[in-house]
Amino acid sequence: MVDIELDSWIFTLGNEIVQGRVINTNASFIGRRLTLLGFRVVGVLSLIDDVDVISRYISLVLKEKPRVIVSTGGLGPTHDDRTLEAISKAVNKRLVINQEALEMIKARYSLHGIELTIERIKMAYLPEGAIPIPNPIGTAPGSWLEVGETIIVSLPGVPKEMEIMWSSWVEPRLRAIGPPIHIVERLFVIEDVPEATFAPIVKDVLKVFSNLYIKTHPKGDEVGKQVLEVYVMYSHRDRNEAEVAIDNAIQLLHKKFRERYGTELKSMLVKVK
Amino acid sequence: MVDIELDSWIFTLGNEIVQGRVINTNASFIGRRLTLLGFRVVGVLSLIDDVDVISRYISLVLKEKPRVIVSTGGLGPTHDDRTLEAISKAVNKRLVINQEALEMIKARYSLHGIELTIERIKMAYLPEGAIPIPNPIGTAPGSWLEVGETIIVSLPGVPKEMEIMWSSWVEPRLRAIGPPIHIVERLFVIEDVPEATFAPIVKDVLKVFSNLYIKTHPKGDEVGKQVLEVYVMYSHRDRNEAEVAIDNAIQLLHKKFRERYGTELKSMLVKVK
Repeated sequence: MVDIELDSWIFTLGNEIVQGRVINTNASFIGRRLTLLGFRVVGVLSLIDDVDVISRYISLVLKEKPRVIVSTGGLGPTHDDRTLEAISKAVNKRLVINQEALEMIKARYSLHGIELTIERIKMAYLPEGAIPIPNPIGTAPGSWLEVGETIIVSLPGVPKEMEIMWSSWVEPRLRAIGPPIHIVERLFVIEDVPEATFAPIVKDVLKVFSNLYIKTHPKGDEVGKQVLEVYVMYSHRDRNEAEVAIDNAIQLLHKKFRERYGTELKSMLVKVK
Repeated sequence: MVDIELDSWIFTLGNEIVQGRVINTNASFIGRRLTLLGFRVVGVLSLIDDVDVISRYISLVLKEKPRVIVSTGGLGPTHDDRTLEAISKAVNKRLVINQEALEMIKARYSLHGIELTIERIKMAYLPEGAIPIPNPIGTAPGSWLEVGETIIVSLPGVPKEMEIMWSSWVEPRLRAIGPPIHIVERLFVIEDVPEATFAPIVKDVLKVFSNLYIKTHPKGDEVGKQVLEVYVMYSHRDRNEAEVAIDNAIQLLHKKFRERYGTELKSMLVKVK
């Protein structure tokens, strides 16, 4: 594993996710972004809209002492949007009306001449001490709450709202507190080498580099026609050193393969997804 | 919530998932299938390839006394494929070579004249007492393990292998032990009704039907042009009763809307995804 001290967890909340009625693209968006910021993503928990279940698992994950927890979903005006209630319960804080959040919601609705109902005012309730995160294209503000060493960021579940709030507001703040490291990545494909044939080579090379991460993904049948995708990642405080190290690691993969199987490893570099 | 007694949890394991390098389609496939079998899916946990983390969360979820846990990923020949080791640890069983699994692997490789290495034999180690699940298109067998009242099903992470093993082997067995209920679903879209406007209507109707589940998803901006998707689900032991109940529930949504807003709710039925 990469030597990163700062752990993070993601919660993607909503019955539609656990029941498989939507594909969880929020999880992959946030997982990717946290990884590139240098946080180690330990887990992604998708849970039903049940305050007790959400609260219980937020509490359990807080015991892991992560630096960041990011949640999506459950901030809207409906009866099952209860993420902030669950978080408040987990961290033993009251859910209180946040004046700044209320102003955001008022401004948004008055702009369109829409009445402020009790369901809409509900979106202004945040855990005590939270900072509201502006939602430039929707109505439910997000929440940034610091609890001990952990920051709990809560964003809406609508992907375009979540993504713009992440990029414009959350990511700059996480970058400031994140580890000062650079991550470099390579992705290549190998034909006609079964994953199990390549496995001992990977194991050998991983022993040599401490901040190296290699993961293989068979794309064909493991027995018939073989396409093996190899993802290589290296993290280091200095970008140039990371670039040098990752190239050395890939050369070593080729060398070890040649030594073990007496034939050249034919690999083709592709763009990292 | 739907009145279903049998809970289920899903574990999708692998660094590539938590780091967002792949989109988690395994979770949505299994979540959907379990729901349609009548199991309540409580949570989906995606975790890094770390035996201790996986083992810890399997233990925690076992305390919830689910009827079924399904895991994907981590069954292959590589050093980071350690799902069954983690499960064995969580349930306090030994990881032992399973003769039936070994025969499956041998047959698969000998068919193609490929050598049986230590990495390949590793795939025959299952928790003591587990039944191997045949993998008709790949090499790693799955595992079916009964621990107290919980069945732990472990499948490979390659989607086409997982799906064929699910459909041909796992689903018929889960159907036999699942609740004897039928689930009927409707999906419709409403234009120009904000989610918050529709929320009190949904709340009222949910009070009337105990086995009804309604979830709304705004597809446009909650303030500007509105498209609201409404998913309605009803579960019952008798399919005809379920069909009648769901139609009654949808009629009641229209009636309550008319009563509250003095205008007809224009909805268009669409195919459930």
